[in-house]
Amino acid sequence: MKGNIVVGQSGGPTAAINSSVAGVFAAAKELGVEKVYGMVHGIEGFLEDKVIELEDYLSDPTEIELLKRTPSAFLGSCRFKMPKIEGNEEMYEKVFEIMEKHDIECLFYAGGNDSMDTVKMLSDYAAAHGKPQRFMGVPKTIDNDLPVTDHCPGYGSAAKYIATSIKEIIRDNESFGAKKPTICIVEIMGRNAGWLTASAALVKGDDCSGVDAIYLPEKVFDMDAFMKKVKYLAETKSSVVIAVSEGIHLADGRYVCELANENVAVDAFGHKQMSGTAAFLAQKVADETGLKTRAIEFSTLQRAATHLASLTDINEAFQVGHAAVMAAEAGKTGMMITLDRNGNDPYQCGTSAYDIHAIANVERTVPEEWITEDGCGLNEGYIKYARPLIMGEQFPVFVNGVPRHLVRK
Amino acid sequence: MKGNIVVGQSGGPTAAINSSVAGVFAAAKELGVEKVYGMVHGIEGFLEDKVIELEDYLSDPTEIELLKRTPSAFLGSCRFKMPKIEGNEEMYEKVFEIMEKHDIECLFYAGGNDSMDTVKMLSDYAAAHGKPQRFMGVPKTIDNDLPVTDHCPGYGSAAKYIATSIKEIIRDNESFGAKKPTICIVEIMGRNAGWLTASAALVKGDDCSGVDAIYLPEKVFDMDAFMKKVKYLAETKSSVVIAVSEGIHLADGRYVCELANENVAVDAFGHKQMSGTAAFLAQKVADETGLKTRAIEFSTLQRAATHLASLTDINEAFQVGHAAVMAAEAGKTGMMITLDRNGNDPYQCGTSAYDIHAIANVERTVPEEWITEDGCGLNEGYIKYARPLIMGEQFPVFVNGVPRHLVRK
Repeated sequence: MKGNIVVGQSGGPTAAINSSVAGVFAAAKELGVEKVYGMVHGIEGFLEDKVIELEDYLSDPTEIELLKRTPSAFLGSCRFKMPKIEGNEEMYEKVFEIMEKHDIECLFYAGGNDSMDTVKMLSDYAAAHGKPQRFMGVPKTIDNDLPVTDHCPGYGSAAKYIATSIKEIIRDNESFGAKKPTICIVEIMGRNAGWLTASAALVKGDDCSGVDAIYLPEKVFDMDAFMKKVKYLAETKSSVVIAVSEGIHLADGRYVCELANENVAVDAFGHKQMSGTAAFLAQKVADETGLKTRAIEFSTLQRAATHLASLTDINEAFQVGHAAVMAAEAGKTGMMITLDRNGNDPYQCGTSAYDIHAIANVERTVPEEWITEDGCGLNEGYIKYARPLIMGEQFPVFVNGVPRHLVRK
Repeated sequence: MKGNIVVGQSGGPTAAINSSVAGVFAAAKELGVEKVYGMVHGIEGFLEDKVIELEDYLSDPTEIELLKRTPSAFLGSCRFKMPKIEGNEEMYEKVFEIMEKHDIECLFYAGGNDSMDTVKMLSDYAAAHGKPQRFMGVPKTIDNDLPVTDHCPGYGSAAKYIATSIKEIIRDNESFGAKKPTICIVEIMGRNAGWLTASAALVKGDDCSGVDAIYLPEKVFDMDAFMKKVKYLAETKSSVVIAVSEGIHLADGRYVCELANENVAVDAFGHKQMSGTAAFLAQKVADETGLKTRAIEFSTLQRAATHLASLTDINEAFQVGHAAVMAAEAGKTGMMITLDRNGNDPYQCGTSAYDIHAIANVERTVPEEWITEDGCGLNEGYIKYARPLIMGEQFPVFVNGVPRHLVRK
């Protein structure tokens, strides 16, 4: 590679996305790239020429290790998506102008579905206008809903946090051993794909009977069946813990969280802001059964908890960043790096590059065959898939009793 | 000690209470005590003669290490408090009858204010009726509100979890760097004492500007001043994170959470069940400013997160359990073990035994002199006090990607 490169982060933060930036930086240094720029707040900031030089932060290997242990988007993220090309040519030209100004040959963009759309649009524009610059997608999403790739960096760490926290919640909930159980309902992120909620199935083991039911958005939520199940569990168990996705919805398409609040807010991408599903269900159970209930929402904790990252996930996030640079070096553009699983015993995973057109805007949900017949559990197929992704720990560097993070000046 | 002993756990679970059971067991073994019983579900279970023998679970040092890494009450907890003696002599006699049946010479009870009341009542009854059995309190409460002792086991780990999680939440909240900030309000446990909420002050450091305001129940909550502060922060910052105690209340005594829901439930001790303070404030801010808001409740996570325990806390929890047995061996009864700080630089802490009558039912709140003049922050006095308590980490034993816990058969 003769020119410089730039890397950006976009969409919801994860515990692993900074490790991908570290991977991009490491590969670029191996290739002798002179300058590795970072977009401040993704493509939105890049359009205003907001960039930093990563060398200023990562000149020392300790700083790279610290970056891998820093939650959220070190470079800053954005919720901005490149608009359709027609009528917005000026904005596209602006991107190329800034790239040329900094002698940037390749742009690397880490994110989920919406971010991959930006990679697609930019590479399509370059192809249509004979621009030499190259664009590569780096997968990142706790939602794990990108297609083609076996899984997405960010998912393993979020799943590890959720499984660990639910295991601790179960221990807490069963400590009183009352004759009438407390019904605890835990709400987990995931609008259309239940991957994160499914990770509640990883709790079960020799030392824990696991959660009592898991409700994914892949299945229509049947309120009557749910209430019947809760009442049965309440009669037969001294503690009940249930995991629900924020995206569960009724047969008529209404989200359960909308039953509590009809005026659900909408974000910059037009997605409804989910929240309050567990609170609504807990209140309903309390009203109908008189039992004590508790609603717990992991909220942003589940995507920010770098203190409980999966080592497998952090390493793979680094790997996809590194592979993206190597693919660009080989002349590739308009592609996303995928993780390709070679086996489970032992778990092995390689990378390759795949056409971004088959990836952008496509959501992959939890396969039907991994959901139990009663619709509220995951079977061994899912466990085999997900278990390797949460293996290993990368502990923070603790200073003064709290984890140390790398900060942008 | 010639006879056997029994240990029980009571009240809200913590990350450290099992380490105290390990400390009791270790000291008893050193003294050659034949049988160490554990009450299943505290004094409530003991009254039904529900006991286990700890030797069945702790015969191997690895099991003791696992117990120290197991959240919540290994023996099971209860919310039952011994009633006044007059008119309830039969219940008191029952306790002594079961102690005699198992040749139990000393009873050790780990818990907070309500549990220390049970120790007081039982030792008072023994004194009044010439019973030879001895009763010792082992301090445990994430609330940190027991008097006399410098601090309470359980607090350090909860504070470490809260500080770490808030630091991660801040990173997440500031990642988008929007022109209009998201206002994030984090709700922390603590009905009358703001110790846990105060731990949000430990977040601030070279790499983090910390939370923007901290509201403790020690100060009357002024809604107008709060709204004014939020509006000012929203105009001057790109991210706002505020910590509030679940117990904040207005000048007229009403809890803020009651403004959202007048029918607040009451627990077995007559305490109001707090929840919804952050949600109420976030909604109010959203309504009055149009800004995006987010409410996060740590709920039971903050008392169950053994995966992020403070090593100082776990060791001190062990220490007070051990010291309680040694004090009983020396003939003491009707006392609680206190932690006595000898210095901060380096931090050193010893133990002694103190009359339970001065402790039971007395709540210690955050001293006025550690709260900043504007009433929404903590000064260096608190930081010096609390920092040593969150130092050091005790990581879980991970099996299959999640922490391993010791379980009662």
